[in-house]
Amino acid sequence: MELNLVQACELLLSAEDILLLAHRSPDGDTLGSCFALCYALAGSGKRVRIACADPFPKKYDYFTAGAAFPDFEPRFVAAIDVADDKLLGSLQEKYPRVDLCIDHHPSNTGYAENRLLDPRQAATAQLCFLLLREMQLPITPLIADCLFTGLTTDTGCFRYASVTAYTHRIAAELIALGANAAEINRRMFETKTPARLSLERQAMRSLEYAFNGSCALIAISLQDWEQAGATEEDFEGIAALPRQIEGVLAGITLREKPEGWKVSLRTQHAVNASAICAQFGGGGHQLAAGCMIAGPLPAVREQLLAALAPYLAAQEG
Amino acid sequence: MELNLVQACELLLSAEDILLLAHRSPDGDTLGSCFALCYALAGSGKRVRIACADPFPKKYDYFTAGAAFPDFEPRFVAAIDVADDKLLGSLQEKYPRVDLCIDHHPSNTGYAENRLLDPRQAATAQLCFLLLREMQLPITPLIADCLFTGLTTDTGCFRYASVTAYTHRIAAELIALGANAAEINRRMFETKTPARLSLERQAMRSLEYAFNGSCALIAISLQDWEQAGATEEDFEGIAALPRQIEGVLAGITLREKPEGWKVSLRTQHAVNASAICAQFGGGGHQLAAGCMIAGPLPAVREQLLAALAPYLAAQEG
Repeated sequence: MELNLVQACELLLSAEDILLLAHRSPDGDTLGSCFALCYALAGSGKRVRIACADPFPKKYDYFTAGAAFPDFEPRFVAAIDVADDKLLGSLQEKYPRVDLCIDHHPSNTGYAENRLLDPRQAATAQLCFLLLREMQLPITPLIADCLFTGLTTDTGCFRYASVTAYTHRIAAELIALGANAAEINRRMFETKTPARLSLERQAMRSLEYAFNGSCALIAISLQDWEQAGATEEDFEGIAALPRQIEGVLAGITLREKPEGWKVSLRTQHAVNASAICAQFGGGGHQLAAGCMIAGPLPAVREQLLAALAPYLAAQEG
Repeated sequence: MELNLVQACELLLSAEDILLLAHRSPDGDTLGSCFALCYALAGSGKRVRIACADPFPKKYDYFTAGAAFPDFEPRFVAAIDVADDKLLGSLQEKYPRVDLCIDHHPSNTGYAENRLLDPRQAATAQLCFLLLREMQLPITPLIADCLFTGLTTDTGCFRYASVTAYTHRIAAELIALGANAAEINRRMFETKTPARLSLERQAMRSLEYAFNGSCALIAISLQDWEQAGATEEDFEGIAALPRQIEGVLAGITLREKPEGWKVSLRTQHAVNASAICAQFGGGGHQLAAGCMIAGPLPAVREQLLAALAPYLAAQEG
């Protein structure tokens, strides 16, 4: 059932022993939203905990480290910022029934019993801000930090087309409520490990163009990864690099995994990233989507360029 | 004389035949602020034009290209976002008397007859927004684009410590007034020329550390510049790179010019960039400042490290 904001609030307020699920490879929006809800609901006297198939990255310590989760058998399961129950990873089997999903991805598969979905929101954290307001739960400085983290990471620090006047108004409110905006932005966007620098250099070395410069492609092999000494966190944002080049309408980042190549596609408006990745069983947003393709690099590359051709062939010559 | 907002408005509204001066190597804030004031004051029936020692970079075309400046002998000269009259470059001699300076740099030297200075503002464009509001001049979508450009470029897209709830509220208002925020941010922050990429690679190759990793230094020689085929615009933001490395409290970017090395110093709170650059006749903000030092690279490097030692020596070993 599709819920509106008021219905979702009623459902959450009536729930007990709540488990909040973050998506695998957790980012700032899924974690910021989960922890904001967790702290706020726990503050209202409920038992709440968070689960995720992957560990929380160290960079989010400032809001994750202080949490003490009580031990209980959940009676209510909510997935936050999880577009597809496959993204629950190893937790999908354990929690086949999701009572509520709160999400902003237009590609949400509707797997949950109840859904608060709003693709107009720039981040799930923006939706969670509205929920907390509606539930009249206090937004402490720590909760403001969580929500600001979701908002800023999912908008590339207020850069993306999804950002509206409304997003800036919520950012202003969160700062007024005590969010350490500058420190969070510094941690999220201004800090590179030496391994990350090495990864960027390797990505740049692999750079190639197609469709007369309207498509740029970088590839990072397992070997590159090992050589750089990079962790999962070091990859964040690498996918934004190829689209940044002047004239590029579609930027492809290929990253080798043991099971195949992980594709991140970032586009300008002329190219529907979500539709292209859907052809390979993936999904996402209009301007940023992903999928997984198995096979050797040249074959993967060829399949992607074939899928892009209807959009970009006109750029040729 | 120091003016408050109302006094500055009165002065501007009583002025005729206004020349607005931008600083040399013009950036988004000086140009965005100049053009916003120019369009608004011209819209109220005054003759206004803008002058700058250097040409306007192409990336600002979306608000600079449409301007048609009338030809007149100025009767009122205002310098916008110009901290020091030396920054007027070749125009300093031509306009020795500046009637009004509107600026947010704490290092402003007070060279103008009348001054509207507010270092609490994250950008001069933020101050100009308040001025236009106070003068009750309409903020058209084009003017909103100008002001948004100043706001976003001078805050690194809302990243820096100078950003307050207030900055985000003004951003929200400008978007509501028609600023093309996403397109402006894409142009300012998401577009790299191939020459820029090459410049970044060279900068990364020159990277060295001091004070046990708390200082990072990159140097770009005239030869590097030529090899990359880089223009002035390709350098924007390069100075942010060294401070982005984990653990770095002071990031130094040295860029060779015919007359010496142009130093950009970006710091964390523990290090006062403005005070250090002042030792070499430069200035700027607490966390971002610049100066010019002549001499061979090793000597320049040594002088800078000596100036940083009082802040960073404790990091050693």
